[in-house]
Amino acid sequence: MSERASGQRTSVFSRMRATTGGEMLAEFLGTAVLIMFGTGCVAVAVVGLPESGRQTVDFGAGNWLIIAFGWALAVVFGVYVAGGVSGAHINPAVTLAFAIRRKFPWAKVAPYWLAQVLGAFAGAAVVYAVYGPAINAFNNTQGIADGADSLPTFSIFATFPAEYFGGTWWGPFVDQIVGTALLVGVIAALIDNRNQAPLSNFAPWVIGFVVGAIGLSFGTGAGYAINPARDLGPRFFTWLAGWGDTAFPGNGDWFSNYWWIPIAGPLLGGVIGVIIYDLFIGQVLTAKETAPEVEPSPPPGRVPESAESGTTTSASD
Amino acid sequence: MSERASGQRTSVFSRMRATTGGEMLAEFLGTAVLIMFGTGCVAVAVVGLPESGRQTVDFGAGNWLIIAFGWALAVVFGVYVAGGVSGAHINPAVTLAFAIRRKFPWAKVAPYWLAQVLGAFAGAAVVYAVYGPAINAFNNTQGIADGADSLPTFSIFATFPAEYFGGTWWGPFVDQIVGTALLVGVIAALIDNRNQAPLSNFAPWVIGFVVGAIGLSFGTGAGYAINPARDLGPRFFTWLAGWGDTAFPGNGDWFSNYWWIPIAGPLLGGVIGVIIYDLFIGQVLTAKETAPEVEPSPPPGRVPESAESGTTTSASD
Amino acid sequence: MSERASGQRTSVFSRMRATTGGEMLAEFLGTAVLIMFGTGCVAVAVVGLPESGRQTVDFGAGNWLIIAFGWALAVVFGVYVAGGVSGAHINPAVTLAFAIRRKFPWAKVAPYWLAQVLGAFAGAAVVYAVYGPAINAFNNTQGIADGADSLPTFSIFATFPAEYFGGTWWGPFVDQIVGTALLVGVIAALIDNRNQAPLSNFAPWVIGFVVGAIGLSFGTGAGYAINPARDLGPRFFTWLAGWGDTAFPGNGDWFSNYWWIPIAGPLLGGVIGVIIYDLFIGQVLTAKETAPEVEPSPPPGRVPESAESGTTTSASD
Amino acid sequence: MSERASGQRTSVFSRMRATTGGEMLAEFLGTAVLIMFGTGCVAVAVVGLPESGRQTVDFGAGNWLIIAFGWALAVVFGVYVAGGVSGAHINPAVTLAFAIRRKFPWAKVAPYWLAQVLGAFAGAAVVYAVYGPAINAFNNTQGIADGADSLPTFSIFATFPAEYFGGTWWGPFVDQIVGTALLVGVIAALIDNRNQAPLSNFAPWVIGFVVGAIGLSFGTGAGYAINPARDLGPRFFTWLAGWGDTAFPGNGDWFSNYWWIPIAGPLLGGVIGVIIYDLFIGQVLTAKETAPEVEPSPPPGRVPESAESGTTTSASD
Repeated sequence: MSERASGQRTSVFSRMRATTGGEMLAEFLGTAVLIMFGTGCVAVAVVGLPESGRQTVDFGAGNWLIIAFGWALAVVFGVYVAGGVSGAHINPAVTLAFAIRRKFPWAKVAPYWLAQVLGAFAGAAVVYAVYGPAINAFNNTQGIADGADSLPTFSIFATFPAEYFGGTWWGPFVDQIVGTALLVGVIAALIDNRNQAPLSNFAPWVIGFVVGAIGLSFGTGAGYAINPARDLGPRFFTWLAGWGDTAFPGNGDWFSNYWWIPIAGPLLGGVIGVIIYDLFIGQVLTAKETAPEVEPSPPPGRVPESAESGTTTSASD
Repeated sequence: MSERASGQRTSVFSRMRATTGGEMLAEFLGTAVLIMFGTGCVAVAVVGLPESGRQTVDFGAGNWLIIAFGWALAVVFGVYVAGGVSGAHINPAVTLAFAIRRKFPWAKVAPYWLAQVLGAFAGAAVVYAVYGPAINAFNNTQGIADGADSLPTFSIFATFPAEYFGGTWWGPFVDQIVGTALLVGVIAALIDNRNQAPLSNFAPWVIGFVVGAIGLSFGTGAGYAINPARDLGPRFFTWLAGWGDTAFPGNGDWFSNYWWIPIAGPLLGGVIGVIIYDLFIGQVLTAKETAPEVEPSPPPGRVPESAESGTTTSASD
Repeated sequence: MSERASGQRTSVFSRMRATTGGEMLAEFLGTAVLIMFGTGCVAVAVVGLPESGRQTVDFGAGNWLIIAFGWALAVVFGVYVAGGVSGAHINPAVTLAFAIRRKFPWAKVAPYWLAQVLGAFAGAAVVYAVYGPAINAFNNTQGIADGADSLPTFSIFATFPAEYFGGTWWGPFVDQIVGTALLVGVIAALIDNRNQAPLSNFAPWVIGFVVGAIGLSFGTGAGYAINPARDLGPRFFTWLAGWGDTAFPGNGDWFSNYWWIPIAGPLLGGVIGVIIYDLFIGQVLTAKETAPEVEPSPPPGRVPESAESGTTTSASD
Repeated sequence: MSERASGQRTSVFSRMRATTGGEMLAEFLGTAVLIMFGTGCVAVAVVGLPESGRQTVDFGAGNWLIIAFGWALAVVFGVYVAGGVSGAHINPAVTLAFAIRRKFPWAKVAPYWLAQVLGAFAGAAVVYAVYGPAINAFNNTQGIADGADSLPTFSIFATFPAEYFGGTWWGPFVDQIVGTALLVGVIAALIDNRNQAPLSNFAPWVIGFVVGAIGLSFGTGAGYAINPARDLGPRFFTWLAGWGDTAFPGNGDWFSNYWWIPIAGPLLGGVIGVIIYDLFIGQVLTAKETAPEVEPSPPPGRVPESAESGTTTSASD
């Protein structure tokens, strides 16, 4: 190949990287990092630790802490990796909510979604490459002839609802809406410079622990996908990798048809979350900015601090 | 409706949002976020995890870590959400202490309190919407015919004292005073710019972990409400939602009459906490500022660092 | 009393607060906060949680996490409270090491030490006020007639060595030296502005987790006092409060004579720690500053980042 | 010795400290701190806590949290200690990756590696000095006549693969590649100032928790050495200290020949990690910088935030 042809091709690639193509690369890698750390920590809880994995899936409190902190840090590092390029949505529900309420370009929504789902798929594949032997050993120990029937190992990758919902669709649907509304509503606060947005590039650390808090508070009902790509990408991987009907419909029972809930619930919940933030906080900040005659709002996180002075040193004079 | 009428009404709303009304909205949402994450993590420990919830309420060490970190992050995000508008008290004890010792306007105390209690009520309602099926399944598994008698599920929402207090009122009362004094006293340090107040909008993160520390250290005696709204709002919700006498008095035994303790204890303890801070630290900082002839205090968190240099390179010459 | 007399007395107090007296107040309160959170979290593990406390002292992994995080946050908030006034040593070993290697005034060493021990005593008294009923209930449940014999409840307040040391004094002594050397050596790094000292008043957060790391790594051998005041103050309180010979000597066996180890070990270890830091790091930073002809050291935490550019876009041209 | 000779010798030492010699001292101490905290926390889990250590090695979920947080903080403080002098690689895989992709001088690679391995050896020796009595007591309790056969106590210091890999070399090799690729790839993001690199010297805190995340997600397969020095130094120490064949080859079975995997895997994985970062993120940032006509990338961690304003206050006019 001539140098000229190479240079021209390179130039095209470079231009692509400078536009939406580069942002797609960043969303892909950020979401892959998210899923590698996130599903990896479930693998530790299910098949990694001798205590739990070799006998039964027992998400005891200790395992749940591993999962909650693991997913929190997964988000932290997914956001640090991709943030400077794409804003690090790494979640279609965030992308949609920002398109509706934060002027994120609608033309980029589909590319972002595609990159996010592909990144999640790739992350799940890496985790399978590492934990494949452990999964096989787990199935052998459990006497599971067909790995496709193994809900514990499936749970490493994708989510499913708690039994206590009794097969209703609305139980986990509400769960996903509330969880994602909290996620996106709090993120809206954390990136609002008129509020108390963390500075010094500290925001990704804090944003990750929003997911940690959701895991500790709303995680056991439906596995806190709160992110359509987080569930769909790995679920599709498990479908290809042999879990089959456990991942996607076919036999018509409620569980098999569950896959749409961690897509629709988060997409709806994220929009609700940012709207609630705007109604209760965003519009108040706007109103304060446009009403200068009113007393100034207190500086973020501060209250007047003059009361300490003088009570003893001067008040008695 | 004419455009003019709409515009006028909007303008009235806008003005309300720019004043105390907006701060009430922020306190409402911030406290609701606090309660959603906070009571949600107790729900995970009680009815969410198969290990603990389905058999008995067993706040083992693992569950306690879920509860301690869950409430810590609940405060972190409640403060990040509301801070830029209202200062994010999200706790009537903080509001009262700041009115008494930090010149917070007395006229705003009642509106803040109202918004905080309503926000806590709303947060509890959302948690009930998500965990209702889990609570019912728990009661069925436990053979509890009348959910109103279920102290475990009640404990998701509101607090109660440990048995070892033996029915005295002063045991948990002292517990609440000490816990809240620590909370508000340490917060007084964290927002005092003359001390080592965290910068870069890092303060909400640190403030949340004050509650985490209290949970780890003073949480098991009386459930560390340390916040009248945190207990009263969800308690009122449980009263309406069917727990009845478990939530509020009626039969006259000591437990039923417990509800006033997580109100009075924190209100008193918060004031004590800020006064202790002022006596030991605040007045010292004031004295140092007004006594310039005295040697300057060391810069926050720093000690002179010149000793490393030279001991080997020059002392032997 | 005349206004003049009152004003004069106030002025004297104000002057005292502006000098070493104020720093003593800060060290007192900072150490009290440290001990309230720290021994409080051991109380949660021993007598607070039904699982562990009511049957036996079982510092399982979950309890150990409560203790490790509890003490970490205890240091965080002790330092935030006192830092702006006294530098927040809240540990006689830090004070001594800084006097020897950081030009902290020798005249202030004894006042600091006194304030630290008194603050630790006061903090233990507050914890006893809150947990007294729990301690009594624990003793009743355990069938312990004389609380003075109760090592579990004593362990809430002060430290003791693991059985596997077999009664030697040098085992826990080495443990205390190593732990405190790590503490003070790392603190020396965290406050050295020529190194990577955390900015934005973030240092107290990080410093607290040095103690957290020591608890997770060197905590089980001798209870990681790593602070003479942390052990002596509460130990003296238990001696007064009824534990008697368990706290201090009398019967001549090795355990009773253990009390001097968490005093001497940390004092020695802290000095060793800061000297090691100076030998390996401090003098290097000094040498670099005084040898300008040498290549500049890399900026803290950074490596050259120019390699990404161009490899594809220009290298092939 | 004359003053002149002393001064000259000092000057030579000073010059050495100002160049690569000083950086070696920093890498030595930083890696020693890493290993002291890191292997110390495994010692707590194996022989420190009565629950686990005295009966069998049982890395239950609680123990795993101790290990994951312990190693995370070990990295945090190793980096804080050495960062201002050497950049705090404290890991040969980081040094190699930075030489290949970040213009770190090749001439310094061998000195850094040497210092790192020696520092890790020294750190292991200190941990042995503290925990020797506990190790002996553990062996006695377990009825292990020859400590050389004790895999549990060996596991305090060095790593070994999970049984489920069935003796293959490629299973743990892939595990080490993936883990270290994540480590170095994410570090590449965290120190890239064009991305969202943490400011205020907050980076060491975040970098440490990359290792925490790897421990929670990819730690149970092969002990997450992800650092040739972390494994080789302590392994060599155990070989000298009596574990013999357990540490290094001899009998020819696969386990004995395992030692090269935590060397080769991380060295390869680290390079892969930084290359992936450059392909997906670094080159995109470069392309954006060199294509100014393209729309600017969003500021790190921010999205446009203008949507809140006006929807209610002006849209209806």
